[in-house]
Amino acid sequence: MAAGEQVTLLDSWASSFGMRVRIALAEKGVKYEYIEQDLWNKSGLLLQMNPVHKKIPVLVHNGKPVCESLVIVQYIDEVWKDKAPLLPSDPYQRAQSRFWADFVDRKVFFFHLFCFLLCFEIYEHGRTILTTKVEDQEAAAKKDFIDTLKLMEGELGDKPYFGGETLGYVDVALLPYCCWFYTYENILNFSLEADFPKLNAYSKRCLQKESVSKSLEDPKKIYDFALKLRKKLGVE
Amino acid sequence: MAAGEQVTLLDSWASSFGMRVRIALAEKGVKYEYIEQDLWNKSGLLLQMNPVHKKIPVLVHNGKPVCESLVIVQYIDEVWKDKAPLLPSDPYQRAQSRFWADFVDRKVFFFHLFCFLLCFEIYEHGRTILTTKVEDQEAAAKKDFIDTLKLMEGELGDKPYFGGETLGYVDVALLPYCCWFYTYENILNFSLEADFPKLNAYSKRCLQKESVSKSLEDPKKIYDFALKLRKKLGVE
Repeated sequence: MAAGEQVTLLDSWASSFGMRVRIALAEKGVKYEYIEQDLWNKSGLLLQMNPVHKKIPVLVHNGKPVCESLVIVQYIDEVWKDKAPLLPSDPYQRAQSRFWADFVDRKVFFFHLFCFLLCFEIYEHGRTILTTKVEDQEAAAKKDFIDTLKLMEGELGDKPYFGGETLGYVDVALLPYCCWFYTYENILNFSLEADFPKLNAYSKRCLQKESVSKSLEDPKKIYDFALKLRKKLGVE
Repeated sequence: MAAGEQVTLLDSWASSFGMRVRIALAEKGVKYEYIEQDLWNKSGLLLQMNPVHKKIPVLVHNGKPVCESLVIVQYIDEVWKDKAPLLPSDPYQRAQSRFWADFVDRKVFFFHLFCFLLCFEIYEHGRTILTTKVEDQEAAAKKDFIDTLKLMEGELGDKPYFGGETLGYVDVALLPYCCWFYTYENILNFSLEADFPKLNAYSKRCLQKESVSKSLEDPKKIYDFALKLRKKLGVE
């Protein structure tokens, strides 16, 4: 890391999006200042750094903000390119990595929404869509989520990481949800260990890496947070 | 283009996602075979090439499929890198381009959904969410769309293209919606020319480029298609 570089992360502790950025920075060995944000009372700094979406995470690098977690992860990979490459160099493999990271974003996060109405943008602008029929949709969302995990289990196969022999872009996109799996299991009444043994082993293997373990949160703390949040949002 | 390369595009004529890929291929001067797909009766080829999402567009390059329009556009930019670069070389500028392309995806396409329920995945899996309260949501969606256009107008400013002096990644992401604007104007009762003069001039300027004009469809043909589709989907 060049001398005099200033790296700041505006984040919120339970955010899967923020955890992606934390893992990427840890993989690259980038030192940074972490500033926790209160999402119920957004700071002037957050509104100034992300005026379009007003959301965390925001990476501020030498005064310039980068927003949206997967955009930030790619930025980190391109700026600190000499250590722990996240995207492969081959264009076809890069496309495959982007495809699966996008899949995680669409499918895993979509389920996340159904369970917790955690996306504050949806909470603010689209609450009526989700709340009017949320109970009716939960069974369909659960089936879709289980199908998604099956697809991810198949894509992982016998590889140690989604990217192959080393932790890569798809892993960074997916791993934050691993500390939410305990919550999903409890709410949906399934067992990752019994139903998705490869994903379960993968999750444990990745947690052996310090870059991952120190970037994620305790699953039980997340579960407690999720229950409180559901109550606050009136989901149950 | 290297001799012996085989490039095939599985696409559907009115698809904004497909048009992105057509513009990118035209900008790069890549010759390809176009295979129109019937989205109401998906071909074995499409299901084989995109088993996860089962959606167009799919670019098949030397037998290997790449799916998801923005993933494909980045792939095209990386493979045919010597002509008409779409993403800038500076990491910060690249991040900004990805941010705005993602913004177009989330905001412009989200509105598209509200208007037409055109996304076949949503149509298949989430129809009940959108149809139960779609009328109630239309006013909110319209306001959100107008706000989105205001933000895009501001971001464009006095630049000829979103990327600066040359057509780039954000332009490729957005331009396909330009041939849908006539439809939006008619359904939402606003005037792009009066309300968003910079976007209007931009749209006309881009259509002067053959790579754009030959990749987009006639706005009136699109409008006719949209009306028929809304009827078919029971929106009106």
